[in-house]
Amino acid sequence: MTDLPKEIHIVEEGPREGFQFEKGKIPTGRKIELIDALSATGLKHIQIVSFVDPRRVPGMVDAEDVVRGITPVKGVTYTGLWLNDKGFERALATQRLDVRGTITVGASDAFLKRNQNRTIEEQIASQYPMTRRYKELGVPVTRGGMMAAFGCNYEGDIPVDRVVSLVGEILAIARETDVTLDYVSLADTMAWATPLSVKRVIGAIRDKYPEVEISLHLHDTRGMGLANAYAGLEMGITRFDSAVAGLGGCPFAGHAGAAGNISTEDLVFMCEEMGISTGVDLDALIQCALLAEDIVGHPLPGSVMKGGTLARLRAAR
Amino acid sequence: MTDLPKEIHIVEEGPREGFQFEKGKIPTGRKIELIDALSATGLKHIQIVSFVDPRRVPGMVDAEDVVRGITPVKGVTYTGLWLNDKGFERALATQRLDVRGTITVGASDAFLKRNQNRTIEEQIASQYPMTRRYKELGVPVTRGGMMAAFGCNYEGDIPVDRVVSLVGEILAIARETDVTLDYVSLADTMAWATPLSVKRVIGAIRDKYPEVEISLHLHDTRGMGLANAYAGLEMGITRFDSAVAGLGGCPFAGHAGAAGNISTEDLVFMCEEMGISTGVDLDALIQCALLAEDIVGHPLPGSVMKGGTLARLRAAR
Repeated sequence: MTDLPKEIHIVEEGPREGFQFEKGKIPTGRKIELIDALSATGLKHIQIVSFVDPRRVPGMVDAEDVVRGITPVKGVTYTGLWLNDKGFERALATQRLDVRGTITVGASDAFLKRNQNRTIEEQIASQYPMTRRYKELGVPVTRGGMMAAFGCNYEGDIPVDRVVSLVGEILAIARETDVTLDYVSLADTMAWATPLSVKRVIGAIRDKYPEVEISLHLHDTRGMGLANAYAGLEMGITRFDSAVAGLGGCPFAGHAGAAGNISTEDLVFMCEEMGISTGVDLDALIQCALLAEDIVGHPLPGSVMKGGTLARLRAAR
Repeated sequence: MTDLPKEIHIVEEGPREGFQFEKGKIPTGRKIELIDALSATGLKHIQIVSFVDPRRVPGMVDAEDVVRGITPVKGVTYTGLWLNDKGFERALATQRLDVRGTITVGASDAFLKRNQNRTIEEQIASQYPMTRRYKELGVPVTRGGMMAAFGCNYEGDIPVDRVVSLVGEILAIARETDVTLDYVSLADTMAWATPLSVKRVIGAIRDKYPEVEISLHLHDTRGMGLANAYAGLEMGITRFDSAVAGLGGCPFAGHAGAAGNISTEDLVFMCEEMGISTGVDLDALIQCALLAEDIVGHPLPGSVMKGGTLARLRAAR
C-alpha cells in the first residue's frame, strides 16, 4: 500500500534550537540535565549548542560550559552549530564534539541577502574554499544543506528546478573538493512546505540525482510539520531533524503553543505507530519533553506529551 | 503524482465543540458573533449548538437562544447535535436548523458501554427504530456515522475488518429503512489514527463498498490531525469535519495549546496551498480564529492563525 521506510534516523536539535531561542536565562545545569536525559532515550545524534555571538544570542553564552558539562553516552553523537569561522574554531576547541563540515547553499537570494549578505551564487562560491579549509584541518565534510528549499518569506515560492539545480551545485562542490556526502538536507526554513511540495521537490531531485540521500528539516509554524514528515516518509525519506517538545525558534514569539521545529516525540509516535522503527524510547522521550517544559517555564507545542501514548492505553486495558 | 481531489467540503464544528467544552461562561451574544462571522467566510455548513442536558454541559444552556440569535446567510446550512430524543425534539422545535438524522454506530464495545451503556450490537439494533422515527417525522436521514473507528482508549486498536463490517451494518439499516445516505463519517473519536491507518481503513472500505462516500472527523490530540487529513486527501476523501482555531474538546483540559478537532484554517491552508479548493476565504477564517481566541480568553491550538498565510507574504513582496 505504501513504501514507508522500515526505520528512520533522527537528529535531535531541541537543546540547540530551544536554548538559543528562549528569552529568559536558563541555568547551564538545567541545559545539561536535558541533554543528559535525551542521551538516555535512544537518540543517536543530539545537536546541543550553537557557537554564535553571545551579544546577539545571549542564550548561547555558556555553550562551552554546556559541552564540558554533559556526560557523553557511548553511541550518541553530540554536535554543535556554527555560522562562521570563529564559531567553527570554538566548536573544534571543545574537543568533545563531533565536528563535521556542511556544504551549505540557499535557495533564495532575498533570504541569503538578509542573513548572510550574499547572493545564491556568492554562497555557492564560498563553499569551495570553506570545504577545502575543513579538509585541511582534517574535519570530515559529510553533509550538504539547503536553506529555504520550499519557499521564502522574502522571495515567495521557490521553483522546483532551482532546488534541483542547487543539489547539483552541492554535488559539484563535493566532487571538486573530493568529499563524499552522506546526505543532503533540505530545510523548510520558513515553513512554506506542504505535503504536496515535499513530494514534488523530492521527486524532482530523485529524477535527476537518484543516488542522493535526502534529509528533511521541517518547521511546524503553519501546522504542516507532521503532514510534511509523513509525505517525506511516503517518499522513502529516512532522515529527519526535530526538536523535543517542539522546542525552538518560531517567528512569532509570545504565542504559547507556537511551533518551531517538528516535535521529536510526535515524529517518533507517528513512526512507531506506523511500524517504522526510530530506536527511541517514546516514554523516556516524553519525560524529556516534560522536563523541557519545566526548564523553559511555559507550555511547549508538542502534542503526544499532552495527549499521551497509545502503548500506555493498550497496556492498561 | 497524487490523486488529490479538486475540492473538499468542510463541516465547521467549532461553535458546537468549543462552547460545549470551554469551562467559563461565554455570553450568548459572543457565541452568535462568532457564528455570524463564520457565516461570512464561505463555509457552507456550520454546526452551531448541541441540545444536551445543561446540568451536564452548562455551556449549552443557551442553545435555543444562540439558534434564535444568529443571522442565517443564504447558502449556509446550520445544524445542531443531539444525543437523545429530547435533544432531537429541541432541535426540531427551533425551526431554524437543518435537522437531519444520522445512522450512528460505534466500533468499540468498551466505548459504547461507557457512553451509551450499549453493546455494538445493541447500538446497531437501536438505529432501525430511530431511523424509522426520523422518517415518520419527515426528517431526512442522509448520513451514517461511526464512533471510535480508528481505536479506543478503553479497548485499544480496532480491527479493520470490524470497521468494514460496521459500514455494512450502516448500509443494511439504510436499505432496510429505505433511506439514501450521502456519506458515512468515520470519527477518530479518541485520536488513535495515523496516516497509515487512515489509508488502510479507507482502502478496506473501498474494496468492499466502492460506492460509499467517506467523511473524516479527526482529532488532533496526538498531533496527527493534519497528517491524517492529508492521508485522507490522498485517498480521495472530500469531506472533513473541523473546528475553527482548533476549538473544542480535548481530554487534557488545562493544557494551553492542547488540541481537539483539527483546525479549520490549518486544513483550509493545507488544501488551498496544494491546489484543492475549499470555497473558504482563509483571511476571513483566520479573523474568526482570532475572534474565537478572544471569546474564550486563552490561546487556541490553530497554527496558521499564528504563523500567518503565504498568500499574504506573496502579495507583500
